Amino acid sequence: MTRPIHGGNLNWAAQLAGCSPSVILDFSASINPLGPPESALKAIQGGLSSLKHYPDPNYSQLREALGKWHNLDSNLIIPGNGAAELLTWAGRELATLDAVYLLTPGFRDYTRALEAFGAKITPCPLNVARMAQKTAEREDLILDVPSSENCGLLLNNPHNPTGQLFSRRSILPYLEQFALVVIDEAFMDFLPPEEQESLIREVENYPNLVVLRSLTKFYSLPGLRIGYAVAHPDRLKQWQKWRDPWAVNSLASEAAMAVLEDTTFQKQTWGWLKRARSRFYHDLASISGLSPLPGAANFFLIATDFSATELQAQLLQEFQILIRDCLSFPELGDHYFRVAIRQQEDNQKLTQAIKNTPILKEKNSN
Amino acid sequence: MTRPIHGGNLNWAAQLAGCSPSVILDFSASINPLGPPESALKAIQGGLSSLKHYPDPNYSQLREALGKWHNLDSNLIIPGNGAAELLTWAGRELATLDAVYLLTPGFRDYTRALEAFGAKITPCPLNVARMAQKTAEREDLILDVPSSENCGLLLNNPHNPTGQLFSRRSILPYLEQFALVVIDEAFMDFLPPEEQESLIREVENYPNLVVLRSLTKFYSLPGLRIGYAVAHPDRLKQWQKWRDPWAVNSLASEAAMAVLEDTTFQKQTWGWLKRARSRFYHDLASISGLSPLPGAANFFLIATDFSATELQAQLLQEFQILIRDCLSFPELGDHYFRVAIRQQEDNQKLTQAIKNTPILKEKNSN
Repeated sequence: MTRPIHGGNLNWAAQLAGCSPSVILDFSASINPLGPPESALKAIQGGLSSLKHYPDPNYSQLREALGKWHNLDSNLIIPGNGAAELLTWAGRELATLDAVYLLTPGFRDYTRALEAFGAKITPCPLNVARMAQKTAEREDLILDVPSSENCGLLLNNPHNPTGQLFSRRSILPYLEQFALVVIDEAFMDFLPPEEQESLIREVENYPNLVVLRSLTKFYSLPGLRIGYAVAHPDRLKQWQKWRDPWAVNSLASEAAMAVLEDTTFQKQTWGWLKRARSRFYHDLASISGLSPLPGAANFFLIATDFSATELQAQLLQEFQILIRDCLSFPELGDHYFRVAIRQQEDNQKLTQAIKNTPILKEKNSN
Repeated sequence: MTRPIHGGNLNWAAQLAGCSPSVILDFSASINPLGPPESALKAIQGGLSSLKHYPDPNYSQLREALGKWHNLDSNLIIPGNGAAELLTWAGRELATLDAVYLLTPGFRDYTRALEAFGAKITPCPLNVARMAQKTAEREDLILDVPSSENCGLLLNNPHNPTGQLFSRRSILPYLEQFALVVIDEAFMDFLPPEEQESLIREVENYPNLVVLRSLTKFYSLPGLRIGYAVAHPDRLKQWQKWRDPWAVNSLASEAAMAVLEDTTFQKQTWGWLKRARSRFYHDLASISGLSPLPGAANFFLIATDFSATELQAQLLQEFQILIRDCLSFPELGDHYFRVAIRQQEDNQKLTQAIKNTPILKEKNSN
């Protein structure tokens, strides 16, 4: 089995760990451990009787629910088969430009979507080593971009894998500068509304802005596939001509409408994350050889002074715990790993397990 | 609300009929009325607990199940978010050729997928008026194609909307002649295995052949979105680089694996369709002004000597019954409509309702 380039590949992990996939404690996929909410499961159950009908190709009800949620005209919104499906079409648009500036390290699927349409990619490297020395979760985005006329910009906020949150204010000037700006806000909803730095509302002012959102990470539904894009209606009409008419399955549509109204689950998640993140960060930082980056989202990138893939293998083999290696982020390589923030008890299992791996024990005995 | 270009748009129909969408008796979408099978619903229920995990991006288990079903290497198979999603990528490949020959009338989504990538479309018109005079469900495919070097061919078999089944033998020479042949066999599984004219097995011999299959029509799961393509592994690898890694939701994947083993449901469907088709054809043909084409699939195209859209409106308003107008097939226009074959009782409701529409009553009183 080849090494996966995305988190959450439990089949691969189970084979290495010599156990069933269901036994693996998964820190590699950054999914809310409190979900999926009952409201989603109930909506799916209720949707079973409608599976014999095609989804409405206009997804009118879903688009209206999303519009209400963001207080935006529903014509600015298109739902997708996960945000990754919509990234494909954003990639197609970006590829028509002279160059696409891409924050690195970045989610591997960005490269896939851009290369699928022959985009000319210009990396914008973040100084991750420097970020590992800092304590602020929120920073201004400062790009070193020599020329950007007729160019595109693809970034995500909060940034994956570093967890860095870029201020809205610092992104705005790039909307004036670039022909097309695509912002993947897949993890933005993990921040309570008052702390978010979303650019969604700017779509009304900038026809050259596309914001991608996911509903599967916060609501723990990655198996169901549901996300959406917010952009100028003309652009979304173009995408609809490119893709098939029924991109979103009707159970995903029903679940999405239900979870948007589940304010109890939303508040629970924000409460859990605030407490768990601060405790987990402290516990990770106290382990010799680990330097977690301060993160605003539901995961941490951690710099190591030893081989992170070796740590990954030992955690799998000895504790059936999966962490995310960073080999698919070529700028990071073997001295970084990423972990999702889970519930307190699981987070402690991980920090204990790390301390008890041969690689750490050997390190501490030296 | 704009007139839908696909069948199954119950929201549109309900608005015209002045009732709730659930009340509409839908003959416009060609979906098996016996389903979805219990096996599918059970598999979906069983899959709910795994929604918090990403689908396996290799879809190994599903591909193996499909490979076993067709007795083919699983590397020749890629599952999709409905056959329509895979059509997008087939369209992208076809668009690289000098021209694409397209059987007309044809499923509207073919044009979408081809135009999405700027394909040069050359229509190959079927003589539908002549087909309405005949009685054979199975015919040889005879194309009038002047030149086809470096050209593509896109057809479906059985053909939608006519229901015509083309013989396998008559398609084979086109595999030698065209640079790429895409055959949509979305309705092939409605024929019992011994009557099928599938080209799937030829994929082993022809790297320039792509066969698209759906699992949502036969198993009544259009809301869930699941189909697959059978083609050369190099081609499928290319498609995987184009599309996002998790195109198929995990409930669709679980349901697909379950229904492939549901031989009871398969036999029930073949038995029902054989009986219902012959009776329904006879009943429709006996109505004055209607000439149903003989069809091998689970629907009929019916020529009329009056306005079919007027009939559609009257059936909706007076009987809450939805038939499929053919305005989205520009070659057919207002003197054809299409109906799915449903259970005996529903089919009789439709034939009775047609006879009692003002347009038919007026016709018969003249």
